[in-house]
Amino acid sequence: MTSSAGAPGREERLRISEIFGPTVQGEGRHMGRPTVFVRTGGCDYRCKWCDTLFAVLPEHRQEWTSMAAGTILSEVDRLAGGPILVSVSGGNPALQPLGGLIEAGHERGHTFTLETQGSVAADWFSALDSLTLSPKGPSSGHVTGLAELEACLDAAGNGPETTFKVVVFNEADYGYARELAANYPGHPFYLQVGNPEPAGAPDSEDLMDRFRWLVERTNADRWYAASVLPQLHVLAWGNRRGV
Amino acid sequence: MTSSAGAPGREERLRISEIFGPTVQGEGRHMGRPTVFVRTGGCDYRCKWCDTLFAVLPEHRQEWTSMAAGTILSEVDRLAGGPILVSVSGGNPALQPLGGLIEAGHERGHTFTLETQGSVAADWFSALDSLTLSPKGPSSGHVTGLAELEACLDAAGNGPETTFKVVVFNEADYGYARELAANYPGHPFYLQVGNPEPAGAPDSEDLMDRFRWLVERTNADRWYAASVLPQLHVLAWGNRRGV
Repeated sequence: MTSSAGAPGREERLRISEIFGPTVQGEGRHMGRPTVFVRTGGCDYRCKWCDTLFAVLPEHRQEWTSMAAGTILSEVDRLAGGPILVSVSGGNPALQPLGGLIEAGHERGHTFTLETQGSVAADWFSALDSLTLSPKGPSSGHVTGLAELEACLDAAGNGPETTFKVVVFNEADYGYARELAANYPGHPFYLQVGNPEPAGAPDSEDLMDRFRWLVERTNADRWYAASVLPQLHVLAWGNRRGV
Repeated sequence: MTSSAGAPGREERLRISEIFGPTVQGEGRHMGRPTVFVRTGGCDYRCKWCDTLFAVLPEHRQEWTSMAAGTILSEVDRLAGGPILVSVSGGNPALQPLGGLIEAGHERGHTFTLETQGSVAADWFSALDSLTLSPKGPSSGHVTGLAELEACLDAAGNGPETTFKVVVFNEADYGYARELAANYPGHPFYLQVGNPEPAGAPDSEDLMDRFRWLVERTNADRWYAASVLPQLHVLAWGNRRGV
């Protein structure tokens, strides 16, 4: 499914949950890279272990702000003071018409990486510098299908560097990731340790246990093309927002 | 200075401290990537905070094994069971004639990443898939000079993807890294949190304090091109060898 948004004008209003940073990317391809986060509000999924329900559930809608691209970029510029990697996340940011934001941001020297579960394809994906497809496995209560992911890859084309990232809590998630990777061998693949305490205080030792298990699991299968990573920001800042 | 080794034959003996894995890369560009480590013995530096003195000090020499490339690769194959990223480290692996190992390893489908402080350039650098120059800042007791790094970059040419990684313990190291990055803007740059307990039990909370400080430090300078990372393997496995 391709978004009907077309190539949106820069005046289009976007639903923003929060803008914060600079901090560093805690996940995947850009782990450790300084970035400002722009988080959109609204999501078509309700993952059981979602760590950003404040950007997902309609009851938080009054906390989201309707903003034009220029206003968002002014805030990014104020926080960063210069060109930076902008990480667009959600919710599902693919639900918003972000083409104008990306275009105007590029003019200011920013680069854009976006993460989405891959349930909705948008034609402006091709304007991104980096796209992370993070399809959800069984433990989430959803299973992102191959046809939807295919549509996202088609929309992205040769524009962004596209990587996959799958959150793994258990054997079923691992199996889902393994099948997915077999379908898309050409893209860098990241396995990310699930965080079972997305709201309270995370248990670093438990997270490291899960990390060690996942490393052993992939190595036992001789699956050497996938990288295995914890969430760096959770280890460093717990579940605090705004870092 | 270019190594006098030339293009070494495959029969050349190499001084190996240890071969272990598969585990995941805990540092830099390939963090999280499954890999087998090949660690050479011997080093031209004596860094104050060295975490692999068993591969550096002459008194450990009797623990090192003289091995031909074929024997090393047989061990890599036995451990990994198939093509994998081989991480060559030391000590300073640039002191060994590794050209034959890399060539024979490529034929078996392996890829090679190598880390060195950059004090010695070897002409086989150009055969690597990935080269990490990890020059040492003031806290080490050494300071790797620009001329030596320049020679390493020349030797690598357009062969490997070359990245820089600097271990940062304090403000002086940070300043050294900053100056270095200004000289080599074209290469990905990683700042790595120093581990003050390389032998005993590492203090994860202290390491995370250091990580948060380093993130704040770089962001305060609006230095957004450098990635900031802890040592993942130390968080996961402490200072244990062989993981």
